[in-house]
Amino acid sequence: MPHKVAVIDQTLLPHDLQIAELGNLTQMIHAIKQMQVRGAPLIGVAAAYGMALATLNAVSTAALQQAAAQLLASRPTAVNLRWAVERMLKHVLALPEPERALAAWHEAAKMADEDVAINRAIGQHGLALLQGLWAEKQTAAILPDATASKDQAQTSHRLNILTHCNAGWLATVDWGTALAPIYLAHEAGLPLHVWVDETRPRNQGASLTAWELAQHGVPHTVISDNAGGHLMQHGLVDCVIVGADRVTRSGDVCNKIGTYLKALAAVDNQLPFYVAVPSPTIDGRIADGLREIPIEERDGDEVSFISGLAADGSRQSVRLTPINTPVANPAFDVTPARLVTGIITEHGCYRPQELAGLVAKLHLDAAAE
Amino acid sequence: MPHKVAVIDQTLLPHDLQIAELGNLTQMIHAIKQMQVRGAPLIGVAAAYGMALATLNAVSTAALQQAAAQLLASRPTAVNLRWAVERMLKHVLALPEPERALAAWHEAAKMADEDVAINRAIGQHGLALLQGLWAEKQTAAILPDATASKDQAQTSHRLNILTHCNAGWLATVDWGTALAPIYLAHEAGLPLHVWVDETRPRNQGASLTAWELAQHGVPHTVISDNAGGHLMQHGLVDCVIVGADRVTRSGDVCNKIGTYLKALAAVDNQLPFYVAVPSPTIDGRIADGLREIPIEERDGDEVSFISGLAADGSRQSVRLTPINTPVANPAFDVTPARLVTGIITEHGCYRPQELAGLVAKLHLDAAAE
Repeated sequence: MPHKVAVIDQTLLPHDLQIAELGNLTQMIHAIKQMQVRGAPLIGVAAAYGMALATLNAVSTAALQQAAAQLLASRPTAVNLRWAVERMLKHVLALPEPERALAAWHEAAKMADEDVAINRAIGQHGLALLQGLWAEKQTAAILPDATASKDQAQTSHRLNILTHCNAGWLATVDWGTALAPIYLAHEAGLPLHVWVDETRPRNQGASLTAWELAQHGVPHTVISDNAGGHLMQHGLVDCVIVGADRVTRSGDVCNKIGTYLKALAAVDNQLPFYVAVPSPTIDGRIADGLREIPIEERDGDEVSFISGLAADGSRQSVRLTPINTPVANPAFDVTPARLVTGIITEHGCYRPQELAGLVAKLHLDAAAE
Repeated sequence: MPHKVAVIDQTLLPHDLQIAELGNLTQMIHAIKQMQVRGAPLIGVAAAYGMALATLNAVSTAALQQAAAQLLASRPTAVNLRWAVERMLKHVLALPEPERALAAWHEAAKMADEDVAINRAIGQHGLALLQGLWAEKQTAAILPDATASKDQAQTSHRLNILTHCNAGWLATVDWGTALAPIYLAHEAGLPLHVWVDETRPRNQGASLTAWELAQHGVPHTVISDNAGGHLMQHGLVDCVIVGADRVTRSGDVCNKIGTYLKALAAVDNQLPFYVAVPSPTIDGRIADGLREIPIEERDGDEVSFISGLAADGSRQSVRLTPINTPVANPAFDVTPARLVTGIITEHGCYRPQELAGLVAKLHLDAAAE
């Protein structure tokens, strides 16, 4: 039975790759709150390991229920965390106390393995969609188009995908959700190029997604979050793929703040807007994302200050706003189902209105026990 | 006859307020390119003074035409620069050489005075719109609404305006365009609150607009550019007002990158989207903003690096992206007229389809002479 969980400290990327070792529940909760560990699927598995770490301390039902409550309170928006904690609690509490610790570590490891398999399946379903878009684009390219701009001509030889935040392998145990189809398509030889939204305020795109894609040799360009609409207007984007922190049974999508703006622009430019999620991200208990999903409000200092690499190689935090400027920092927004082309899961790609069928089949609307 | 032009170096705000003295044409062009001087109306007046500075060196027709060409090439998107340079050239070349220098300084000063008067008139017309919105909101607030959220209740006692970039007095000679109605409304006692988009990559909102509003005591909150759509979905925004760098005769609006995304969100949430511009910002010669307005592509380092105030009080630039990450940095986008509620000018507020009438009346479609 292990006694520590090793995670990449994502707050230090892209400038430093460091592994943090978490030895107890408190350290895991700190890592989740501070976003050393982030990304809805990875938070789910991390929370499962948080429960396993809790068993190092105590295995009574009361103690484990308290550990679960602490984990549930660490971040409110992503549903995977709740799903993982509830699954762990149900599994472990069914056993006599002496068996609970070992069972907790086994179950957490099983969930980590499942996450890898789920993301690979998401990648396969997304790959088929990208191959279809690429075939369409090649057909369109051979038709004469007198209005094609120079920019369009320069980008017609590749499939341009825009993504927001980081839904790659850093956000999961492996592969990623939104980036899984991109990695598989790149391996399959599709000529891809990814527009990476920097994703203020925490810059997960500029730091994590850009770093991930570079590691795998996938062509990409970082842009400010403001630029995506302009690129779409000029034919420089072929589709949008993002991950999500929670999807309702009606297909409303809660994801990193700013996703809604990109969905509006995709629809305004007749571009497909896909959301890639493992089924545990679907919260079948709720329908109306705007009214029912709690949106985490994070510290305003995430907007007022930013950290990066100074000229001397040290990491520096600098203030961007005047002193005492009030700041608001909602961390997520909800994209209404009407703007979503498809939700790519490990079971296939579903239109929003088809999602209720998947929810019923997988019992994703079951109340907590 | 003066020999220097004093400007606020806007690249040092909000942390330092320093005046830069520009003594020749080359220095003025540098200040415009480096955005020490920025904002379409201010660039126009600065370019006029650039022509005056050029007369210190030479007053021949050839020399002044060359100075004009250099100024025109300094920034491609804002039309005020071209308007100002063409007006100066026409005025000065009509005179015999010995009179040109003094006339140039007088004409530039006249344009600066006109800018103040124009912006005050924009403010008055915008104030009437804000008073109308406030009256509407107060009427709506006394109707019982069972669906009102806590957030809505907290903000129903004030008028919430969202703005993007900086179109305040820093961007003009005085008052500003988008902020002129806000300053007048604040003076008139309207309970206002301004959501300030930080406006990546150069953060004109987080640095300049926040600083300006604080100087005048106008309540405001800085947000990431990603947050505006979410705030609108939750009833926390009553209207959007932005400035512009160029407006076509059909009402297409070219403004700071990201404006288009806010216009889409305003329309999706049935909110008014206003653009405040002096008439020299209207380019009556063109109709299709998406195809006819050149969009400046600025250095990618504006996205990869950011500068701010370090803990020791020094100004530091830090790297945000992995080394060698490709970056694209289009500086403006075009909001199609169909998304624009009204264009507030010194002559009144016009719906986009009414703008052609104003263009004809003011001869804003006249070809360059």
